[in-house]
Amino acid sequence: MQGVSGRHFLQIPGPTNTPLRILAAIAQPTIDHRGPEFQELGRNVLTRIRPLFRTAQPVIIYPASGTGAWEAALVNTLSPGDRVLMVETGHFASLWNRLAQRLGLMVDLITGDWRSGADADTIEAKLRADKEHAIKAVAIVHNETSTGVTSDIPSVRRAIDRAGHPALLLVDTISSLASVDYRHDEWGVDVTVGGSQKGLMLPPGLSFNAVSPKAVAAASTARLSRSFWDWEEMLSANKNGFFPYTPSTNLLQGLRVALDMLEEQGLDAVFQRHLRMARAVRGCVRHWGFEIQAAKMSEASSTLTAVRVPAGFSADALRAEILASSSVSLGNGLGPLADRVFRIGHLGDFNDPALLGSLAAIEMGLAVRGIPHRSGGVESAMSTLLGRNAAQPIAAE
Amino acid sequence: MQGVSGRHFLQIPGPTNTPLRILAAIAQPTIDHRGPEFQELGRNVLTRIRPLFRTAQPVIIYPASGTGAWEAALVNTLSPGDRVLMVETGHFASLWNRLAQRLGLMVDLITGDWRSGADADTIEAKLRADKEHAIKAVAIVHNETSTGVTSDIPSVRRAIDRAGHPALLLVDTISSLASVDYRHDEWGVDVTVGGSQKGLMLPPGLSFNAVSPKAVAAASTARLSRSFWDWEEMLSANKNGFFPYTPSTNLLQGLRVALDMLEEQGLDAVFQRHLRMARAVRGCVRHWGFEIQAAKMSEASSTLTAVRVPAGFSADALRAEILASSSVSLGNGLGPLADRVFRIGHLGDFNDPALLGSLAAIEMGLAVRGIPHRSGGVESAMSTLLGRNAAQPIAAE
Amino acid sequence: MQGVSGRHFLQIPGPTNTPLRILAAIAQPTIDHRGPEFQELGRNVLTRIRPLFRTAQPVIIYPASGTGAWEAALVNTLSPGDRVLMVETGHFASLWNRLAQRLGLMVDLITGDWRSGADADTIEAKLRADKEHAIKAVAIVHNETSTGVTSDIPSVRRAIDRAGHPALLLVDTISSLASVDYRHDEWGVDVTVGGSQKGLMLPPGLSFNAVSPKAVAAASTARLSRSFWDWEEMLSANKNGFFPYTPSTNLLQGLRVALDMLEEQGLDAVFQRHLRMARAVRGCVRHWGFEIQAAKMSEASSTLTAVRVPAGFSADALRAEILASSSVSLGNGLGPLADRVFRIGHLGDFNDPALLGSLAAIEMGLAVRGIPHRSGGVESAMSTLLGRNAAQPIAAE
Amino acid sequence: MQGVSGRHFLQIPGPTNTPLRILAAIAQPTIDHRGPEFQELGRNVLTRIRPLFRTAQPVIIYPASGTGAWEAALVNTLSPGDRVLMVETGHFASLWNRLAQRLGLMVDLITGDWRSGADADTIEAKLRADKEHAIKAVAIVHNETSTGVTSDIPSVRRAIDRAGHPALLLVDTISSLASVDYRHDEWGVDVTVGGSQKGLMLPPGLSFNAVSPKAVAAASTARLSRSFWDWEEMLSANKNGFFPYTPSTNLLQGLRVALDMLEEQGLDAVFQRHLRMARAVRGCVRHWGFEIQAAKMSEASSTLTAVRVPAGFSADALRAEILASSSVSLGNGLGPLADRVFRIGHLGDFNDPALLGSLAAIEMGLAVRGIPHRSGGVESAMSTLLGRNAAQPIAAE
Repeated sequence: MQGVSGRHFLQIPGPTNTPLRILAAIAQPTIDHRGPEFQELGRNVLTRIRPLFRTAQPVIIYPASGTGAWEAALVNTLSPGDRVLMVETGHFASLWNRLAQRLGLMVDLITGDWRSGADADTIEAKLRADKEHAIKAVAIVHNETSTGVTSDIPSVRRAIDRAGHPALLLVDTISSLASVDYRHDEWGVDVTVGGSQKGLMLPPGLSFNAVSPKAVAAASTARLSRSFWDWEEMLSANKNGFFPYTPSTNLLQGLRVALDMLEEQGLDAVFQRHLRMARAVRGCVRHWGFEIQAAKMSEASSTLTAVRVPAGFSADALRAEILASSSVSLGNGLGPLADRVFRIGHLGDFNDPALLGSLAAIEMGLAVRGIPHRSGGVESAMSTLLGRNAAQPIAAE
Repeated sequence: MQGVSGRHFLQIPGPTNTPLRILAAIAQPTIDHRGPEFQELGRNVLTRIRPLFRTAQPVIIYPASGTGAWEAALVNTLSPGDRVLMVETGHFASLWNRLAQRLGLMVDLITGDWRSGADADTIEAKLRADKEHAIKAVAIVHNETSTGVTSDIPSVRRAIDRAGHPALLLVDTISSLASVDYRHDEWGVDVTVGGSQKGLMLPPGLSFNAVSPKAVAAASTARLSRSFWDWEEMLSANKNGFFPYTPSTNLLQGLRVALDMLEEQGLDAVFQRHLRMARAVRGCVRHWGFEIQAAKMSEASSTLTAVRVPAGFSADALRAEILASSSVSLGNGLGPLADRVFRIGHLGDFNDPALLGSLAAIEMGLAVRGIPHRSGGVESAMSTLLGRNAAQPIAAE
Repeated sequence: MQGVSGRHFLQIPGPTNTPLRILAAIAQPTIDHRGPEFQELGRNVLTRIRPLFRTAQPVIIYPASGTGAWEAALVNTLSPGDRVLMVETGHFASLWNRLAQRLGLMVDLITGDWRSGADADTIEAKLRADKEHAIKAVAIVHNETSTGVTSDIPSVRRAIDRAGHPALLLVDTISSLASVDYRHDEWGVDVTVGGSQKGLMLPPGLSFNAVSPKAVAAASTARLSRSFWDWEEMLSANKNGFFPYTPSTNLLQGLRVALDMLEEQGLDAVFQRHLRMARAVRGCVRHWGFEIQAAKMSEASSTLTAVRVPAGFSADALRAEILASSSVSLGNGLGPLADRVFRIGHLGDFNDPALLGSLAAIEMGLAVRGIPHRSGGVESAMSTLLGRNAAQPIAAE
Repeated sequence: MQGVSGRHFLQIPGPTNTPLRILAAIAQPTIDHRGPEFQELGRNVLTRIRPLFRTAQPVIIYPASGTGAWEAALVNTLSPGDRVLMVETGHFASLWNRLAQRLGLMVDLITGDWRSGADADTIEAKLRADKEHAIKAVAIVHNETSTGVTSDIPSVRRAIDRAGHPALLLVDTISSLASVDYRHDEWGVDVTVGGSQKGLMLPPGLSFNAVSPKAVAAASTARLSRSFWDWEEMLSANKNGFFPYTPSTNLLQGLRVALDMLEEQGLDAVFQRHLRMARAVRGCVRHWGFEIQAAKMSEASSTLTAVRVPAGFSADALRAEILASSSVSLGNGLGPLADRVFRIGHLGDFNDPALLGSLAAIEMGLAVRGIPHRSGGVESAMSTLLGRNAAQPIAAE
């Protein structure tokens, strides 16, 4: 963005704005990944990353972006032809579905309207119907990045339990990790998939599998071919702080600082911050008179909001205008939502003026593009942030 | 600011938000200031900095912050006991006055109300009265950083000329350089004083003297003692790209990139950008119902706005609230304005969402502190930025 | 390495010492991987990386470290049960072998002594014996990082051709890319595997597949399951400068600068530099009286030298001493060579004083550890670098 | 140095090689120098810098390079026409002398041969002869950067005391601070002058005055004009962690990390390291057969070594060759030593391989330039570093 003044606002739902402390750590020289300094780093991050998942179990760190961790969750636990129950909550759920099929798995897909989270009752029914336990895993996207809709993972867990079904529970938290309360152990998740470039505030390039003992046991009989993604050697090498092949050293240096920052703030404060910002954004969008992609506010995401533009207007032209005039990047609509929605990322390293400046840039873009809206959205967001928006009490919304 | 989320908004009227490209250049290793690589750097910046002052004459670069360049302008051109005509436009003009007196100069001070620029007629009268030409220099602050009031330098030049007085014209552009149109040669300025940490977007640590041939001639007879600030050795060493003593190498590395950035944007576009933002800020402040410290809008600065808080309220408590809640730093009131005004810096590397986010943070701070104001200031600023604020046409204001 | 003075010398055979220009580029903020600025970056690096492989064909860039690119080369071109001819040149060839087996391939392994490159005659014989063309690929490590032995790829190509065998030729250049002359197109290689953290001077986290039309054709019928590593979507998205899933944005920012640096120096000069340094290292090691792991100097690597320590001494204790006393990291012996050899990386961003300082640190370490050697190795290396070492003429060695 | 491979070795006697940790701190964003975050930084560095001078008294930090701190030491303590006793130990002593004269002081210069430190007996004699105490200050360069010769400050102190003379003692430690044992309080120094770009490992741009109560008292009657350099306002503002005018914020951020690093290593270990390296360099130079500029080894500097090249050879051509071939910068000869000596800086962030690599580069340069020398200098340095050089026992030398 040569020639343009001012800082860029990266308000896509990830990658997020990387704090300079983290960038400075990444820019420290690469170290020997087989030496004592690395070992200390490896032990540090492998230990300290667990609380982000609220797990006491190991978390595997891949030197690869998030899609790889999806693949890893499947190839380590399943065998060719295995059935997987998936829910079409949006674009990323669809991509995970396609990925599973390409790996030779049979996907039972519960179709969806891309505006709702996974329905636990439907899952329970599907599992009850599967008398022979052909379904080996239920795979859910916790926070669907294409729609801003979350799924209630504890309810999915309870559905599986009520059905008395042995399927593994695999959950993608790529755009909710370290932003929204999530409990790998307590919720009985078997594999949690995460990535570095969202709530962890790092550039893309690291991804995670938090694994339950049940998942590790499944790996011993799973026959999908795997090597790079294989957990076994990882878990073995990780015990000493090392990795079986070259890790992404500099990103791990950044991860250590990201963990410092999250610890300094406290995870609960981080979750509250995301919730408060999300409410301000939703209030603003409704004030403008636009529809939010999430059908139910109880399922609306704390980390991003997908906004439906009125029929006859181009979301992409709006985004291009805002990028050119205000240097604010917004997420595009994906799949059937292309050009129909824009997505506001409000996660990661973020604060009130950055949020309000971004909303102001959008409101100006709406004016420039002649998209009918009620002005005053920014002011509405300010009221919400101040806790003064009676129409949208934080308790109820 | 450990533990706080999001980027800091450094909206004091300098130092300004340093672009990462510049910080990256400053963080490149220090080089030998007597070697060929430095020579190329020295020649580059010494040549390319001249257009910022609109001068074809040399610009001296000190490895010192701006106060030093004030001292340099005086000690190179004047002798003990010389009289200098100064105008009390605000805090920095007062500091320059005091500095002059400490150096053994006699200051003729035209007092002021800290809300107006230098009055050319008064200057002319003073000079006409000085039949014996005891006044050796007229020293004016172009853009008074404590008040946000500019002085009309061409009118001062004309006043001197009309009086037929030989005094040198010394001008401080520390907070207007590279932000506001300024013409060292065309306006007949003899010494222009500048600094790195405002429109040049660098950290503090470099300061400048642009010097006219008349100023250089005066230096040959000026008897104030000087060594570090002496122009002669500087001008001589600079011819080859070097410096007579250790320069601030890493900041010069940053200066090269700052010059790249200003050239990429074009100085005229830079000036327009500052003007447009200033109008948006002033419109917002007036919308809130507050007084701007500058009495006449024709003198209101493009780079900062000093805002008077209503009687009975503390500007400093407001600033502390905004810093704590929104991570936006605002400038404090100085001298008699302490706790009575806050200053919004809107210069340097800046764009619309950063401006609007900052104004929104202020508006929220006003609400939290219970300072009566009309809400909607941010929306007013958006209208101005969109060119839709009929009440404040850009042409007239 | 808190508390230790001076710069670290990362003289393992990769990751290499990352230049600060590259680290500064990596530390620039993450950008939107679906926006116009990224598109320009994507097109830039996808185009400019091809000459490093001397190919006019596409090069695929994975957001994963090198082991992933090994897997990619296999899963895109082969089907379960396919036979692959491999040569056991050392540890990494063995790892690639094991990886292939885990993916369900049948490996025909030509065993080796870990001191010699691949033997073309043996390969030819194996292929001639494979009348039914059950062997689908020949997979060779060009520069075995565990031993410092190179294999003559053109001779392997000729062997395949002489045998009239249709097998694909897959080559790992991870530790030779951009350091040693390598010609993907001219040598008829079908898939070349590379990584970021060696001659490209980047941190680990990117890896490459340069692919021939024959390889792309093979991909259309290859049945090994794949998704993350799949070429097809990559090639399709890359046409517009984009990636099918989140790329490692910041490392790509660094890659652009790495390509700038290699272009500034010129690839031929880069190859000459590595050759000259390697000769100096080998001369030094022989002067000390130690054996080089490479049996034939014609096969000795330009990028690293594995040195055999005399029986009864621990290579690892020596490395630990050198790291602690001199802050020089050396590569360890791998597999059967553990504690028997140490490896000197002399590749990437490197110059004479860094090389000689490293050799001096080793020579001091030998003294401290009491390992018998002839002193004067550094002086011998200086003679070689000066072209004055008659005993080891550059032409002949 | 575009296009050249490998790290630069900045082996001039300052600026020194800046550690990346420090550069990363300098590249963190500029902060509000009147805000609470700065206050904490200011208090931190103002307190922690004192032990470097071994003083319990205040240390003033100027946002200016070292020459400014020379000027500050004089203008704060002396009046026009005051006599100062100085010793011509080399180029920088001569520059300080000239600076003093330009400020209107009368300098009593004890001439020297540029190869010896200050002679205490001569100083005592001069002071004894000054019955009327016209001499107001004795100003000595502790470590003459142009020659690599140190002066024995305690002996100078004793000379003053023996003479019963009230003169102030001003000492320049620019190139010895934080590298050589120095005791401001214990040695009764009144003003110690330091800079950032040598042992403190920072870029140039900060300079220091450590001040005794006697010096502060002298300031109250000293009549040399001053403002920027004035101690009074500095000491007053510093009490709260602030500065009376804009400080060099980003360099102060770097200073905090430099202090961390020095504390981690321990000052005594730092001094020992410099001493050990200096001995290795001197042994190497003597092995080559060259003369060291310091006449007495007891006065040879721990931080740099000036080497006399044989008559008929150009030191500058040698330096240019070494810079071009090996990317090692060496210091040039200054004043009468121009082209006659080269100076090796061996201070700051440094270790054995960097030292030995630099010496090897010099030895190769000697060969290329055809300057007669005995080869094996690097090996000699290795012996010294290993404590095995019987001819030069560390205790005796």
